[in-house]
Amino acid sequence: MSGSDADFAAALTAALGAGQVLEGSAVAERNPGFGASNLRAGILVRPRDTAGVAATLRLCHEAGRAVVAQGGLTGLAGGATTGPGDVILSLERLDRIEAIDPVNRTMTVGAGCHLQVVQEAAEAAGLMFPLDLPSRGSCTVGGNIATNAGGCRVFRYGMTRGLVLGLEAVLADGTVLSSLNRVIKNNAGYDLKQLFIGTEGTLGIVTRAVLRLFELPRGQATALAAVESFEQVASLLKAVDGGLGGALSTFEVMWRNYYAVTAEATCGASMPLPAKAPFVVLIEALDRSDEAARGALEGALGQAFEAGLLADAVVAKSAAESEVFWRIRDDSLVLFDRHETVLPFDISLPIPEMADYVTTVEATLARTLPDYATYTFGHIADGNLHFAVCGRAMDPATRETAERAVYAPLDGRGSVSAEHGIGLDKKGWLPLSRNPEELALMRRLKVALDPKNILNPGKVVDAA
Amino acid sequence: MSGSDADFAAALTAALGAGQVLEGSAVAERNPGFGASNLRAGILVRPRDTAGVAATLRLCHEAGRAVVAQGGLTGLAGGATTGPGDVILSLERLDRIEAIDPVNRTMTVGAGCHLQVVQEAAEAAGLMFPLDLPSRGSCTVGGNIATNAGGCRVFRYGMTRGLVLGLEAVLADGTVLSSLNRVIKNNAGYDLKQLFIGTEGTLGIVTRAVLRLFELPRGQATALAAVESFEQVASLLKAVDGGLGGALSTFEVMWRNYYAVTAEATCGASMPLPAKAPFVVLIEALDRSDEAARGALEGALGQAFEAGLLADAVVAKSAAESEVFWRIRDDSLVLFDRHETVLPFDISLPIPEMADYVTTVEATLARTLPDYATYTFGHIADGNLHFAVCGRAMDPATRETAERAVYAPLDGRGSVSAEHGIGLDKKGWLPLSRNPEELALMRRLKVALDPKNILNPGKVVDAA
Repeated sequence: MSGSDADFAAALTAALGAGQVLEGSAVAERNPGFGASNLRAGILVRPRDTAGVAATLRLCHEAGRAVVAQGGLTGLAGGATTGPGDVILSLERLDRIEAIDPVNRTMTVGAGCHLQVVQEAAEAAGLMFPLDLPSRGSCTVGGNIATNAGGCRVFRYGMTRGLVLGLEAVLADGTVLSSLNRVIKNNAGYDLKQLFIGTEGTLGIVTRAVLRLFELPRGQATALAAVESFEQVASLLKAVDGGLGGALSTFEVMWRNYYAVTAEATCGASMPLPAKAPFVVLIEALDRSDEAARGALEGALGQAFEAGLLADAVVAKSAAESEVFWRIRDDSLVLFDRHETVLPFDISLPIPEMADYVTTVEATLARTLPDYATYTFGHIADGNLHFAVCGRAMDPATRETAERAVYAPLDGRGSVSAEHGIGLDKKGWLPLSRNPEELALMRRLKVALDPKNILNPGKVVDAA
Repeated sequence: MSGSDADFAAALTAALGAGQVLEGSAVAERNPGFGASNLRAGILVRPRDTAGVAATLRLCHEAGRAVVAQGGLTGLAGGATTGPGDVILSLERLDRIEAIDPVNRTMTVGAGCHLQVVQEAAEAAGLMFPLDLPSRGSCTVGGNIATNAGGCRVFRYGMTRGLVLGLEAVLADGTVLSSLNRVIKNNAGYDLKQLFIGTEGTLGIVTRAVLRLFELPRGQATALAAVESFEQVASLLKAVDGGLGGALSTFEVMWRNYYAVTAEATCGASMPLPAKAPFVVLIEALDRSDEAARGALEGALGQAFEAGLLADAVVAKSAAESEVFWRIRDDSLVLFDRHETVLPFDISLPIPEMADYVTTVEATLARTLPDYATYTFGHIADGNLHFAVCGRAMDPATRETAERAVYAPLDGRGSVSAEHGIGLDKKGWLPLSRNPEELALMRRLKVALDPKNILNPGKVVDAA
C-alpha cells in the first residue's frame, strides 16, 4: 500500500471514527461477490450513517480520490469494479428498515438493506414490495436503485424506478440531498431522484429511499404453456393479458434450449411439459383469491387454445407445483454446474422484432462459436431477452466474438442492457444503443454533477 | 411591435418558410386557453416538423430570445405565460399519430397530438392509453409530458412519466435529441427522457414521444360509497384494493361540500346517495369482464360494509349510471357557474396526514375568508388532494390569503403541486416543498442544459 493510502485512510478514520475504515489486506480478504476485481482498492469505508457518507465524499472530493459505491456485489456489468487508487464506499451499515406505513403503503429503508429483508418486512405488514431478483438475499436496495433493477414482474409493477417514491443521496462534494418524498404524485419542480436511479453511482450515492408498497395479493395461479411459434407467443401475451383483466403478473418465455436443461435439472424425466415445443411460457396471475386467479387463468388459456395460440398447457394444482414451475424458469444456476463459463446477456428490443433477431444471433453464435452452447429466455412483455453463452473458459477474443454476435444486430433498434446496466463491461457497446447526441448529453450531466469526476469514474460514460 | 421583433420574425420566416411565423395581432387574436397572458408574445412560430423546431431554437439561442413552448393551453400553473419579448413555439402542427404497434403495445405520436385523439386511436386498435384528464379534448401529449400530467387512474397505471417509453426533444441550442426507445426495460446509460418529463419546457422541448399502451379492459364496474370518517376512507382503500386483486382503477374521494354541489347539479333530488355522509367515494374496477368486475366490486364492498368501513354504497347497474357517477366526480365546472372566481389547488401529502391537514385548511379558510366557499376532493390513493376556493373576484391579497391557508401547513411534509406543476404561479411557494439543496440542484440542471436561460425562463426555478 502506498504511503498516501495510509495517510488518506488516517484522515478518513479521523473524520468518521474508529472501525469504519479498512485498508489493504482487510479489504482484499472480503467476499468479492460476482466480480473478482471488486476488491482491488486500497481503502474501504463503511460509514454508520449518512453523515459518514457525506464526510467520506467531502474528503475524497477535496483529494480528488475516486469513490466506488458498493452494495451486495451481485451486479453483472462490472459497475462495482475497483482499482488500486480507489476508495470503496460500502453502504452495508445503512441496513435499517426505518419505517413501514401500512396506510400510506410506503417503506423507508437504508440503502444497505437487502432486498429480501424488504420483501419479508412488507409481507409481515400485509403488503408487497414487488421487485424480485434471484439475488434477493444478497443484493441491496441501494444497488437495486443504482442499477434500476428489473426482474420478472416489471410489466405489471414497473422497474425499480417506478417503485422509488423518494430518496436521499449524497452528491460528489458531500452535499446531502434529502428528497424523501412519500407520495405517488409530486410535481413540485424537477424530479431529482431520477438522476440517481439507474446511473450506477456515477452522479451521486443513494443512502436512503422511500419505497412504494402494494397490497399483498391474496391469490396466485401459475401455468406453463407450450407454443409452436414466436408469433403465437406474442399473440398469447396479448390474449392472456386481456383475458386476465390486470391480474397477469409474469409472462416468461423459455426457448427450448433453455427449458430442456432447466426442466430436466428440476424435474428429471417427469417434466410438467415435454421439451418438444420451440417455446415454453411461464404465466402467473396474482389476483383476489386463488380461485379467482386459477379460474381466470384457465379461462384465458382455454380461449387461447381454441384460438390455436398454444399446443399444450398445464396449470399448477398446488403451491408446491407452482414453485417447481418457477424453479424451472429461475434456475439458471444449473448452467454453471454444466459449463466452465456462463456469459450472460441482457438485451431489449420491440417484441415484433424478437423472432428474427434471436434467429440471427443463434445462427451467428453457432457459426462463429460452434463449441459453445446458447440458452435463450426472457421477459418478453418488457421487450427483454437473455442469452447465456456457455462452454469452456473464454479468452478475450472469444468473449468479444460472442458479444458482437449478440450486440451488432441491435444497432439502432435495441438496447445492449435491458436491466443489468452498463458498468464497465458494456461501455464499449453503448454507442450501438445510444446516438452521439445522447452520449454527449450523458457526459454533460456527468460534468454538471461530478465536475471532478470522482464518482465511479470510467463507468457507464466517460466525463467530457 | 418593436423593430427587432419584425427583424427576428423575418429571420425565422427565412429559416422556416412561409406561413409558420405569426406576429403581433395575429398572435394576440388566437385562443388563449386557460391563461389570459398566454399570448402576450410578439412572435409565434408553428413549425411543421422537428427540423423547424430545431431551426427556431438555433436562432433564438443565437439571439438570446426567450422561447415558451405551448400545447393545448390548458395548464393550471401559468407555465405557458408569455411576455412581449418572448417567442411562442407552438407544437400544434406536430399532431400526427405516426405509428401504432398492437403487438409491442406502443404508439409513436407528435407532441401536438391531442390526448383524446391518442385515446381514441388506441381504443380503435383494441388498446388503452390510460392517461385521462377533463381537458382531454384540448390538451396535447407534449403538454402532458412537459407537466407530467396525472389524473384519476394514476395509482394503477402511473403518471405520464410512467407511460412514456421514449421521446424526441430539442435542446436549447437546437440539437435534436432522438431517444425514441420502444421497450419497457432499457438501462443503456442514463435515462435522459426524465430530463424533459415534468420540467415544463425549461430544459428542452419535446417534439415526439413513444407511449406505452395497455390491452383494452373488457369489463368495468363503478360504485359510490358513503363513509363516515377519513380513517374509514383510508381503510376502505386498502380493503377494496386488496379485495379487487389488481382490478381497482379509481378511488376518488369527495368531501360532503363537493359531493353536495356536483351531485345536485348532475342528478337534482334523485342523487345516487344522499349528501349526508362526510365522504363519498367513487370506486371503479377495470377487469376481464363486466361480470367479473361487478362481482369483485360487490364482494369487496360487502366485506367492507361488514367490517364497518362504509355506511352505504350503490353499484352502477348500467353504463349510463356509471357515467352519472363519473360526472358527479368530474363536473367541477359547475363551480364556475355558481361563482365568479374558482381558485384550484392541487397538493399532495401522505394519506395518514390528510384528515388533520384538511381540517386545518378548511378552518383557516373559514376564518380568514368567510365569504368564500371551499370544496374538497381528491385522488386519495395517490396522496393527492384538490381544493377549490370559490366566491367573488379575488384581489391579489385575498388570493395570497387562500394560498397561505393551503400551502403553509404543508411545510416540509407535502407538495404544493401534486400534478399541475409549478409554472409561474406556484414558484414562490416551491421552497415549502423543496429544500435549499434540492433547489440548488434544480438550478444546476437548468444551467447545464440551458446556459443562456432561453427555455421558458423564470418558470419553475430561476437559473443560478
